[in-house]
Amino acid sequence: MTKHFGEASVKFSNPPSIISAAAIVGPKEGEGPLAAHFDKISDDILFGKDTWEQAESELMRQTIEACVAKSGVQMKDINYIFAGDLLNQNSGSIYGARSFERPFYGLFGACSAMGMAMQLGTMLIDGGFADYTIANASSHFCGAEKTFRFPLELGTQRTPTASWTVTGDGAVLLSSVGEGPYITAATTGAIIDLGQKDVNNMGAAMVPAAADVIVKHFRDLQLAPDHYDIIATGDLGIYGKDLLIQLLQKENLNISDRLTDCGIEIYDAEKQDVHAGGSGCGCSAVVFASYFLKKIKKGEINKMLFVPTGALHSVVTFQQGESIPGIAHAVAIERSI
Amino acid sequence: MTKHFGEASVKFSNPPSIISAAAIVGPKEGEGPLAAHFDKISDDILFGKDTWEQAESELMRQTIEACVAKSGVQMKDINYIFAGDLLNQNSGSIYGARSFERPFYGLFGACSAMGMAMQLGTMLIDGGFADYTIANASSHFCGAEKTFRFPLELGTQRTPTASWTVTGDGAVLLSSVGEGPYITAATTGAIIDLGQKDVNNMGAAMVPAAADVIVKHFRDLQLAPDHYDIIATGDLGIYGKDLLIQLLQKENLNISDRLTDCGIEIYDAEKQDVHAGGSGCGCSAVVFASYFLKKIKKGEINKMLFVPTGALHSVVTFQQGESIPGIAHAVAIERSI
Repeated sequence: MTKHFGEASVKFSNPPSIISAAAIVGPKEGEGPLAAHFDKISDDILFGKDTWEQAESELMRQTIEACVAKSGVQMKDINYIFAGDLLNQNSGSIYGARSFERPFYGLFGACSAMGMAMQLGTMLIDGGFADYTIANASSHFCGAEKTFRFPLELGTQRTPTASWTVTGDGAVLLSSVGEGPYITAATTGAIIDLGQKDVNNMGAAMVPAAADVIVKHFRDLQLAPDHYDIIATGDLGIYGKDLLIQLLQKENLNISDRLTDCGIEIYDAEKQDVHAGGSGCGCSAVVFASYFLKKIKKGEINKMLFVPTGALHSVVTFQQGESIPGIAHAVAIERSI
Repeated sequence: MTKHFGEASVKFSNPPSIISAAAIVGPKEGEGPLAAHFDKISDDILFGKDTWEQAESELMRQTIEACVAKSGVQMKDINYIFAGDLLNQNSGSIYGARSFERPFYGLFGACSAMGMAMQLGTMLIDGGFADYTIANASSHFCGAEKTFRFPLELGTQRTPTASWTVTGDGAVLLSSVGEGPYITAATTGAIIDLGQKDVNNMGAAMVPAAADVIVKHFRDLQLAPDHYDIIATGDLGIYGKDLLIQLLQKENLNISDRLTDCGIEIYDAEKQDVHAGGSGCGCSAVVFASYFLKKIKKGEINKMLFVPTGALHSVVTFQQGESIPGIAHAVAIERSI
């Protein structure tokens, strides 16, 4: 039985279940509209550690531990951990996962990391290689500012199209058996670069990749947009969301009535002064692993297309005048099959 | 049929074939003992570009293009590209793969990247999700020195246990059909950290992870070391190799008569002044994709265990006093099945 469809999509023969999830965030996310949905809100941005990088690793460790604890599965039974973050050499994930001593794959897809992790974690289960996998993604506002932008101490003014990196970690535990929600299909993104160079407008840099993977998803699987109750992109923000609607209209794909963006959902943009919205690997990960997953379980959403998006630049490539390549990965989640 | 064995291993039900491979290197590697085996030796360390980062991306692009061209498969038929490198935010791989517009997964496992890429590329084929996948890893001496150590212009003296980052890219094209060599099994490493902090002795930092994955491989699959004609670790170097033999002897596993290391093979350590040997994601990738693969095809090696190893630190974690976690992934390659 073929599992590969069209150019970049797969359908699962025995769709894996999301049997557990956890989302832990920092203080600012805890003041936002999704506060009630998170497993834990830390009022300490350092999570009890001395540095921002250690804080992100501790946040990641706590979230995976919480996700596994809620499931009843033992850590020793987790076959693979897939994890991604924004720090140089993935150090958020690596130092966070160190104590688990489980088979580990580090991923880099910038803020699309949760999409990659869920796709690969699901393929390894459906392929017969694993019973339990964890998909995880994290980011930390202070660590990301230090890695990509200016020292926080400078108090640099942010441009209107800039986004705010979420301090948060989202984890899901995927299983070969379970009562759903199920991951039923996935479309893997290609690197798309239309030459956008403004690192303070990452939404615009990621939109072409998001449009590309969404078009491929519907074409490969011969679906119409109304197959899904909701389509949630990763972190395009308010300007990126509008651009995506425009770009897809050129492809005769109208998703505006069911499109939202995790970067828009996580903050109250005006009250919390986040400009374009939230971003960071943790943004789509925590919004999916808390808010959306609860809505699916309650039956408020039956079918969802989750599309984390990533801006794949580095400080060095930016300084060398390079444009910002984007990528996005689409994951289909259904309440029942 | 179960494909998962023991704690961390898989066996493939329809072992994918390596139907093509390519290895391109820089000038120093072209002066070493494996020169005759590489597809191309560039006498220009910049590969015609303006910066070291752009050079690595160009090297990566050329190698994948050469690998696909040799196969007769079209680029549009490649289902997934898996690629890893050492640069911040994987920019070597990302800017290199940008022009291909194929489904892309960026990996970070430091110098274990080729092991991760081959494992995931093989699992997606054996799991029924792909017919063709590419596994790729690259590194560039100058880019790595800039990312992890000192400006080259300083001419900093290197310690005796330091290794020399290979300028090179190795790619293999994996296929659901083919006449071999076959990838038959894999063991995925966990992050292992015994507290080593000397960034100029990465061999020592990676040895515990290499020992751990090798022990698990033989235990999970109930094999003895003489199942393999050769066991080749990633880049432990001369001191690391000795440490690995000692550590495995404590586990009653004697592999010294069939153990070699890609970091030892690639240079003439004395003549080329590389101290402990070669390192970098490209090291194990180019040695496998040229020298070892040719030996397997010729029948000089029938069964090989390939174990790329990675040191998972960053400059920031080092500066914060953190130790260096290691990881290693084992891939079994057999001439015939």
